[in-house]
Amino acid sequence: MLTRIDHIGIACFDLAKTVEFYRATYGFEVFHTEVNEEQGVREAMLKINSTDDGGASYLQLLEPVREDSTVAKWLAKNGEGVHHIAFGTADVDAESADIRGKGVRVLYDEPRRGSMGSRITFLHPKDCHGVLTELVTSATVESPEH
Amino acid sequence: MLTRIDHIGIACFDLAKTVEFYRATYGFEVFHTEVNEEQGVREAMLKINSTDDGGASYLQLLEPVREDSTVAKWLAKNGEGVHHIAFGTADVDAESADIRGKGVRVLYDEPRRGSMGSRITFLHPKDCHGVLTELVTSATVESPEH
Repeated sequence: MLTRIDHIGIACFDLAKTVEFYRATYGFEVFHTEVNEEQGVREAMLKINSTDDGGASYLQLLEPVREDSTVAKWLAKNGEGVHHIAFGTADVDAESADIRGKGVRVLYDEPRRGSMGSRITFLHPKDCHGVLTELVTSATVESPEH
Repeated sequence: MLTRIDHIGIACFDLAKTVEFYRATYGFEVFHTEVNEEQGVREAMLKINSTDDGGASYLQLLEPVREDSTVAKWLAKNGEGVHHIAFGTADVDAESADIRGKGVRVLYDEPRRGSMGSRITFLHPKDCHGVLTELVTSATVESPEH
């Protein structure tokens, strides 16, 4: 079961400037930053609210750290904006298998490392009405009950 | 203060098909449907989770009902995908005034009617790093305390 909007992934050219925009305009503070070398991004997580499944919803601001990253290519084509959305689940492995069985292309054979030690996978946007969709299981223990 | 991700607005060509995709793939059910004549859209709200400010986070699936609507024009240019994001606040009027005072263009002089009797406004995407951003105050009473 997918039990929350985990985050909205927003691609930007300059992470520091974009973080400052969200702080100055809305008061959102940085909760966590990291570089994901595999994804080729530097990211800042801004926690917006907690959710009733014991998790939280974030904005994930993403700046590419190399020109051949998928986010760099996406930015070159689209400019800044919403890159993907992510749903939280207690069991990304089971959800991935279930969704793959319904004919939706799951981009990874096995979930990979996401923000803050989470495990993630992505669904092909062409199978999801144009929306690049991520599934996330947090590193912190999540209850399977909603 | 903006206290939650209220919704992610997703533009689609065929609302019934897109609703069915989200139901069949993820188990998300329709919480509410309506036509917003002013915005020129037919919409379905899928409730994903409750939030710690007493509100909730939704997916808002949007199908244009006339060719001159902004969503119809957006779809013709971009295809299906994430159209906007929305933050919830107890006081959209005060937030709009505050954000306008910071130099961000607010698209309406006064908030207008949104989903489920809410009051909404939009911020210009060019002032928000490419993200069309909506502010929402729900029709139900919201506490000003987070």
